[in-house]
Amino acid sequence: MPERERHERAELDALLDQELVGHLAVVADGQPLVIPMAYARVGDELLLHGSTGGGFALRAAAERATVAFAVTSLDGLVYARSLFDSSMNYRSAVVYGVLEEVPAAEEHDALVALSAHLMPGRPAEVRDTTKKEYAATRALRLPIAEFVMKARAAGVGEAPDDGEDHAAWAGVVPLGRAWGEPEPSPLTPAGTPLPESVRRLTGV
Amino acid sequence: MPERERHERAELDALLDQELVGHLAVVADGQPLVIPMAYARVGDELLLHGSTGGGFALRAAAERATVAFAVTSLDGLVYARSLFDSSMNYRSAVVYGVLEEVPAAEEHDALVALSAHLMPGRPAEVRDTTKKEYAATRALRLPIAEFVMKARAAGVGEAPDDGEDHAAWAGVVPLGRAWGEPEPSPLTPAGTPLPESVRRLTGV
Repeated sequence: MPERERHERAELDALLDQELVGHLAVVADGQPLVIPMAYARVGDELLLHGSTGGGFALRAAAERATVAFAVTSLDGLVYARSLFDSSMNYRSAVVYGVLEEVPAAEEHDALVALSAHLMPGRPAEVRDTTKKEYAATRALRLPIAEFVMKARAAGVGEAPDDGEDHAAWAGVVPLGRAWGEPEPSPLTPAGTPLPESVRRLTGV
Repeated sequence: MPERERHERAELDALLDQELVGHLAVVADGQPLVIPMAYARVGDELLLHGSTGGGFALRAAAERATVAFAVTSLDGLVYARSLFDSSMNYRSAVVYGVLEEVPAAEEHDALVALSAHLMPGRPAEVRDTTKKEYAATRALRLPIAEFVMKARAAGVGEAPDDGEDHAAWAGVVPLGRAWGEPEPSPLTPAGTPLPESVRRLTGV
């Protein structure tokens, strides 16, 4: 469906900046592997947390193998007048490229950038990551060069003369995120106020 | 992280039945491809909507190539006392197997089952799918035989003697879905009540 193709970097960036988890696909011994990974976009790169890749992301980086990284947002359900015409509103992008390990000198900043995307405002609220900690973590990056993006953002596909019965309800039900009530850890003293980062995230 | 592995079919099924979109990974000409696809679990099979697979799902089925289908639910963010200990709560599963085209005689039922998962209750509210419509659609199925499931469903990893400052807030922010206000199509007569399916979905 060519009308669903998107080519604007701004649309891609909006999707990448909204979502938190993507799916990395690699080929290992001729077989497809896919794993969910947290990521952050920084400029023209995606940063990934290497340790979560179970080794195969690091292996793909070492082999300079092409990977595919998919990010999808399901934006709504389209309740048409038939199952056939029913649909989903969504945006999805796949970035293709070669993963690189982030050099040691840049690892600290990459991990802070990842955290800042996943938990905006949080890096300023906690102690700095120690050298030992970031030495124990691997960060990977994927240049955003080649990508394929598709989107459906529309109402019900219908027309007065489409032969359907238009007396009943048809329409779109939008879908978004719902952050729940923050649950303090047992060691958090009773009555401790929520940090600014959590208040902004949840809107409380 | 072996403590995050899950082996129970019931846990897998709960995840598969909750989510609506997965990511199919295949190998094409030695390269990884990944695409988001709507699905439904019916018994020991995943049903996929073949037309959305852009042809490569159908090709993988024809070639009897192994595919990987990943379903992930991001369940919350874990705000620890350091970036290093911060984490995500999630459940993710990858089903490995060979896609099959659903035989023509079973296509109608497969498409209704897919719709029933994505839009519970909707099939009973709309006209039946015509023969012409389901002839124009391809359904695929993936047996749930081999799967890998991982989950983190826990609080902040901390201990009184971990050397961190426990005076501030740490905890978990749960994440769920928020269905928005249903938007009727322009052809829906003003004042038309919401169908039962949409009322149940959105809780209005």
